[in-house]
Amino acid sequence: MSRDPDECRRSDCPLSIALEILGDRWTLLILRDLFFKQFSTFKQFQESGEGIATNILSDRLRLLQGHEIISRSQSPEDARIAIYRPTGKGLALLPAIIELILWTATYHKTAAPPELVRAMRTDRKAFIRKVESRFTDKPR
Amino acid sequence: MSRDPDECRRSDCPLSIALEILGDRWTLLILRDLFFKQFSTFKQFQESGEGIATNILSDRLRLLQGHEIISRSQSPEDARIAIYRPTGKGLALLPAIIELILWTATYHKTAAPPELVRAMRTDRKAFIRKVESRFTDKPR
Repeated sequence: MSRDPDECRRSDCPLSIALEILGDRWTLLILRDLFFKQFSTFKQFQESGEGIATNILSDRLRLLQGHEIISRSQSPEDARIAIYRPTGKGLALLPAIIELILWTATYHKTAAPPELVRAMRTDRKAFIRKVESRFTDKPR
Repeated sequence: MSRDPDECRRSDCPLSIALEILGDRWTLLILRDLFFKQFSTFKQFQESGEGIATNILSDRLRLLQGHEIISRSQSPEDARIAIYRPTGKGLALLPAIIELILWTATYHKTAAPPELVRAMRTDRKAFIRKVESRFTDKPR
C-alpha cells in the first residue's frame, strides 16, 4: 500500500467516507459472497451470478484489500490461487449489510429465503456471531 | 412512473436489489441531507458540500422518487420550488445509514460529532424516533 487510503477524501462525513469505499453496485456483493456463500477465490466471485466484469472485480478486491476489509493469501493447495477472507473490519460491515437486506425484504419482492430473513430480524446478534465464527474459528 | 422499478433486475438477491437503487456514491448522501440536515430543495442538496453534479442530483432525486423513497411536492411559498421529503420507506433506511456511519466512525478518522455517534450507538431506537418525528409530526 503506497498511499494512505484516507487521502484525498471529498469530505470528512463518515457516510461520505463509507460510500467512497463501498458506494457502487458491486463491492458489497463481493462481501455478501465472502460472508454468506463463503466464497474465497476470484473465480468464485466472478461466477457468482450478477455478472461482474473481470476488471471491476480485480479493482474492487484491490480496493477492499487496500482498506483492510479483506485479506489476501496464497491457497495452501495451489500457490497460484489467491484466497480472500474478511478481516475484523470487514466483518464489522455485517450489520449494515443486514439492514440493507432487511430493508429490501420489507419493500421489494426478493428471492431471500424467509428463514434467513427471519433469523436476521429476530436474533441479529446470534446471526452475526454465526457468520463471524466461520472466519474466526481456527479449525477449518 | 411508466414502468415497474422492479423490472430488469440483475438478480433477486435483496442486497443486489438494494445496491441497484442505492449503490453509488451519492444517493445515500442525499438521504443523509434529508434526514439529518433537513434539506428539502434541489438547491440545498446541490450546495451540500461534496459537489454533486446537477445532472447526477436530478437523476438520483428522480430515482428515489420512482422507488417511493422520497416524495416531491410544491413549496407552499413558491410553486416553482419542489420540496422533497422522505417517505416511510425512505425513513426505513435509517438503520442501514446509521450502521454505515458507525462502521466508518470506528475504523476511519471522520468529522462526525462524537455526541452524535454516541447517540446512534447507545440508543439507536430513540435516535431513529427523533429523526422520524421531524417528518411524521404534522405541525411544521
